Amino acid sequence: MERRKGSKAKTQKDFSSMLPQILRAGQGEVIINLLPSAIHELNNALNTLLGFAELLQSKPNIPKSLREDLEAIERAGAKVRELMGTLRFLASGVTSPIQIAPVDLREICQQVVALMNASFRRNYVRLVTEYSDQTPVILSDPSRICFILLALMQNACDAIGSLEESGQLLLKTERDESGCAVLVLENEGQGLPKEVRSKLFEPFVTTKTEGKGAGLGLFLVRHFVEQLQGKIEICDTEKGTRVVVILPSFQPQT
Amino acid sequence: MERRKGSKAKTQKDFSSMLPQILRAGQGEVIINLLPSAIHELNNALNTLLGFAELLQSKPNIPKSLREDLEAIERAGAKVRELMGTLRFLASGVTSPIQIAPVDLREICQQVVALMNASFRRNYVRLVTEYSDQTPVILSDPSRICFILLALMQNACDAIGSLEESGQLLLKTERDESGCAVLVLENEGQGLPKEVRSKLFEPFVTTKTEGKGAGLGLFLVRHFVEQLQGKIEICDTEKGTRVVVILPSFQPQT
Repeated sequence: MERRKGSKAKTQKDFSSMLPQILRAGQGEVIINLLPSAIHELNNALNTLLGFAELLQSKPNIPKSLREDLEAIERAGAKVRELMGTLRFLASGVTSPIQIAPVDLREICQQVVALMNASFRRNYVRLVTEYSDQTPVILSDPSRICFILLALMQNACDAIGSLEESGQLLLKTERDESGCAVLVLENEGQGLPKEVRSKLFEPFVTTKTEGKGAGLGLFLVRHFVEQLQGKIEICDTEKGTRVVVILPSFQPQT
Repeated sequence: MERRKGSKAKTQKDFSSMLPQILRAGQGEVIINLLPSAIHELNNALNTLLGFAELLQSKPNIPKSLREDLEAIERAGAKVRELMGTLRFLASGVTSPIQIAPVDLREICQQVVALMNASFRRNYVRLVTEYSDQTPVILSDPSRICFILLALMQNACDAIGSLEESGQLLLKTERDESGCAVLVLENEGQGLPKEVRSKLFEPFVTTKTEGKGAGLGLFLVRHFVEQLQGKIEICDTEKGTRVVVILPSFQPQT
C-alpha cells in the first residue's frame, strides 16, 4: 500500500484494487434507480388487490366467516403497503437537499426494524429495544436518519452474523442533557478488526468478503450525521461494539 | 484535470471530487443490503393475503360475483409476486460467482420492462420492442444479464427524459451470424455528450445532475459483458445512441 502510493501517481487504473467494492456499489446504483418505478408498479397491483377486497367487504349479506377472512386480507395488505412505503421513502428522498420535518427516532426505529426482521433471523440477532419516553422529537431529515439507522443495523447484523452463535443487538433511543435525540446501537458481535479501526469512515473500506459489501455504509453515515449537525462515536465494548449517534434539531445556517 | 494529475499523487482525499457519486453509490449499497430482508417480509405479508383469498375461493356456496372478485384479487396478487420475484432475483444473485443457466433474452426483456413501466411513463419514453423469433437461448448468467439490461434501459430513459419531448426507445433481441444472442437498444435521446465520450466505461463518470447518479452503470455493464465473454458497442445514430450487446453461450475455461 505504502509502496504503491510512493512509487507512482494514482491514475484511473487504481480503481482496479477496489473492483469488487465498485461493482457492488454499481449494483446498488442500478437497484436504487429501479426502485421508484418498481415500487410504483407493485403499488398499482396492490391497490387493485385491496380495492377488490374492500369492494367485497362492502357487499351486503356477506357471511360472518367470509367477512373475517376479508379483514385478514386487508390487514395483510396494509402491512405490505406500509413496508412498501418505507422502501419508497428510502428510494426517493435521499439525493435531494435536506428536507426538515419532525422526527421521532422511535418511529424510524420501528419502521427500519420491520424491514430487517428477516435479516435478524438469518444472522441470529437477538434484538432488544429500549425506546425511552424521554426521546425528544427533533427537527431533522427523516430520510437521511433512516439511512443512518439502516446502515448501522446492517453493520451490526454482519458483526453478529459472523459469530458461531447468536448475539444481542441493543437498540436504544434517548435524550441527552442538551435535549438532543440519541441513538445507541450496541452489538455483541466480532468487534472492530484492527486493520480497519483507523479508517472506519473512509470509503471503500470493508471487512466483508469480496463483493459482499462496497464499504460505503459508514462513510455515508458519517457524512449524513455531519450534514445533520450531529455527532457519531464508535467504540469497543467488553463484548463487541457500541455506536452512539447524537442528533440535534437542525439549525438552518443564516 | 490534467494539471491536477501532474502536480500531485492522488491520495485518499481525492475522493472528495467524487463525493456526490460516492454518496449515491453508498445509498445504493444500503438499499441492496436491505432488499433481501425487505422482500422476505413483503412476501410473508403477501402470502398471508393470497392464502386467505384462496381459502375464500375454495368455500362452497360462494356467489358468482364474489368469486369473480376473488379471482381478480388472485390475479393482482400473482402480478405482485412476479414483480417481487424479479426484484429478489436482482437483490441476491449478482455478487456471487457466475451461475450458468439457459437464458432467453426475450424473457429477461419482458421482466425488466414490467418493472420499468413507470419510469418509461415518467420520462416520456415510447418503448418499441422487436423480439426476433430467431433469438437464440444461450447458456449464460441470467442475473448479470438482467443488470446489463436494466442499466442500459436506465441510461436510455435518462437520455430521453432530458429532452423537452417524448422519444422512442427501440429494444431488440436477435441472433447474429455466429449464433450469439444480440441485444440492441436504440434511443432517440440527447446523444452522448462530448466530454464523456472517451471515458464512457470509467467508474464515477456521469452526465447526471449531482447526486442523481453514481456513474457506475456502464462500468458495471462492460465488466459483466466481458465476464460473460460478450462484446458491447455504443455509437451515435442520427437521432441518438445505439447500444449493441453480443452475448455468446458461456464457455467455461478449461
